Amino acid sequence: MSAEPCGKGILLKADSIANVFRDEIRVTLATRSRPPKLVGILATSAAPSKFYAEFTQKQCVALGFDFVLKRIGAAADPTLGEGDGVEEAIIEANEDESVDGIMVYYPIFGVQQDHYLQQVVSPFKDVEGLHFKFHYNLYHNIRYLDPKSLISSVPPTSAPAVAIEDQPPQGTVKSILPCTPLAVVKCLEHIGVYNKILPYGDRAYGKIVTVINRSEVVGRPLAALLANDGARVFSVDIDSIQEYTKRPHQSSDAQRRFHPHHIVHPCTLSLQECLALSDVVISAVPSAEYKVKTAWLKDGCVCVNVAADKNFTADVREKALYLPTIGKVTIMMLLRNLLRLQHYGELTKA
Amino acid sequence: MSAEPCGKGILLKADSIANVFRDEIRVTLATRSRPPKLVGILATSAAPSKFYAEFTQKQCVALGFDFVLKRIGAAADPTLGEGDGVEEAIIEANEDESVDGIMVYYPIFGVQQDHYLQQVVSPFKDVEGLHFKFHYNLYHNIRYLDPKSLISSVPPTSAPAVAIEDQPPQGTVKSILPCTPLAVVKCLEHIGVYNKILPYGDRAYGKIVTVINRSEVVGRPLAALLANDGARVFSVDIDSIQEYTKRPHQSSDAQRRFHPHHIVHPCTLSLQECLALSDVVISAVPSAEYKVKTAWLKDGCVCVNVAADKNFTADVREKALYLPTIGKVTIMMLLRNLLRLQHYGELTKA
Repeated sequence: MSAEPCGKGILLKADSIANVFRDEIRVTLATRSRPPKLVGILATSAAPSKFYAEFTQKQCVALGFDFVLKRIGAAADPTLGEGDGVEEAIIEANEDESVDGIMVYYPIFGVQQDHYLQQVVSPFKDVEGLHFKFHYNLYHNIRYLDPKSLISSVPPTSAPAVAIEDQPPQGTVKSILPCTPLAVVKCLEHIGVYNKILPYGDRAYGKIVTVINRSEVVGRPLAALLANDGARVFSVDIDSIQEYTKRPHQSSDAQRRFHPHHIVHPCTLSLQECLALSDVVISAVPSAEYKVKTAWLKDGCVCVNVAADKNFTADVREKALYLPTIGKVTIMMLLRNLLRLQHYGELTKA
Repeated sequence: MSAEPCGKGILLKADSIANVFRDEIRVTLATRSRPPKLVGILATSAAPSKFYAEFTQKQCVALGFDFVLKRIGAAADPTLGEGDGVEEAIIEANEDESVDGIMVYYPIFGVQQDHYLQQVVSPFKDVEGLHFKFHYNLYHNIRYLDPKSLISSVPPTSAPAVAIEDQPPQGTVKSILPCTPLAVVKCLEHIGVYNKILPYGDRAYGKIVTVINRSEVVGRPLAALLANDGARVFSVDIDSIQEYTKRPHQSSDAQRRFHPHHIVHPCTLSLQECLALSDVVISAVPSAEYKVKTAWLKDGCVCVNVAADKNFTADVREKALYLPTIGKVTIMMLLRNLLRLQHYGELTKA
């Protein structure tokens, strides 16, 4: 962990965390008969999407992955509309047997229509982990799956075998997790928030975490992941604060059949009260104006900024362990997912 | 069609349209060995949802359907949270073989999380037609499906056989359409906007329609349905105006393989210019403040209000054929879908 001491806090950098995964990815890649092929679909003229597409390309090429950037709509021709042809491009990549993974650069049309597009991507090629099937598994703490079960559109009626250690039971593989929430969890593991003395699946036990944002892409899956790992999580959005915690016994029949997963309560604490209790604060508010008040933070807490515009002010590093950006880790999660999906493909063909 | 003449326009009522479908539903219901069972899931304390749940119940009971209203979360107990236990209730109803259809009273958590819940409902019980598979078919103008294909989570790689008349080809049934957009189409058929002289699938040819709202629940599927039926549609939302039209030849390979479906262009007309051209104006803006300017409407156009709060002012009836509410038709579409899903279930068991 590279760190610049500054006041009593520390400024953390994602590079050293990303490097650990980069090495792991290189080792796995070397065992494959061919590098997996990722198709990036860039359909808008938005500068951040263009930047991220080029960043993905650079990282993929450097590691030896096969990356094809498909520019369509306004990204190909300024006279075309934003997002023109994106659904057709996804369908073509779904059907192209040489393609192992598909990455679409959002936002394109807005939250609702983008959510529709996320379901059009075949779950067998969904490197971003945005398909409903993967979200369903995440919310129900179903960590392993038989890749053949992905073919079904109907949610599982019973839980698969549950592993106690971090190893998939016979005949199963790990489910795909959405890249950004997963990158946050991996960063927290490296920073020492997860305690390896505790059993797998409960290593965030005793930790209090505030997650500011409750979108289906970042905040809600992240809160669920952390709660499924044992943390007490305050999920904050513009309207409400909820508490996510895991309890061993659930009340309904449907819940009881699953591996214990988080439950959600309304929370009567204010944001200030939540922050005063929190060991970890993660903020992902898509606004340049939104700032977490440094004065409200607990001394020595871990702060992670996931927003494009920083949600923390410069003085946060004086009292917190502050990780201002996690993009380099997120891209490693994407490539790990790509390797996993290539493996899914082999298992379902076998 | 009951109508009160008023100025040069007409105030239309949905009752007579609903009655046609009520009669049709009674005839179909009489052919079934048992009435289909619909489970309504009410998870919030919101008055409109409670009202709509009671309305569904009344209509179901009057027609002889088996309806069970399940009150959970804040709807069952004011000390519980809004939406508490809704996902578990859906899963229980998915797995209960005696249940033919599931209706969830939205909004619950907001657009994104509600969209997630809509995917948790099994497509075999999705009376509201909100599952991704049905939206995919709608957007691609795939009108018939083999019910067994619903089991797959991966979008179809080729189009099913296409019927020229309004009759499913051998081995297929009609795909489920979302209730509200379908109710609008049925109202427009009854009002005479659809021309029966034209071939099936092109009966709105020559008509210009403005749809104000582009949500995934109402506006976008409605614009696509109307364009797939031959209309020229202006799709208006807060940020942009788009034009949806159907063209016989599409540019990409993926498009060519499907039944011709709508394509979307950016539109340079203003709302005022769109309304000046429109034979039909449908508004579904969820705001009591939003009003369509009567002065901008073409004399004798058809106006349909789909919003809970009226999007048209009282003077609209002086120049338009005005249908202020379509709720009674929407519920009939729901019951038609329920009968169709009961039939799907029989086909997949056979």
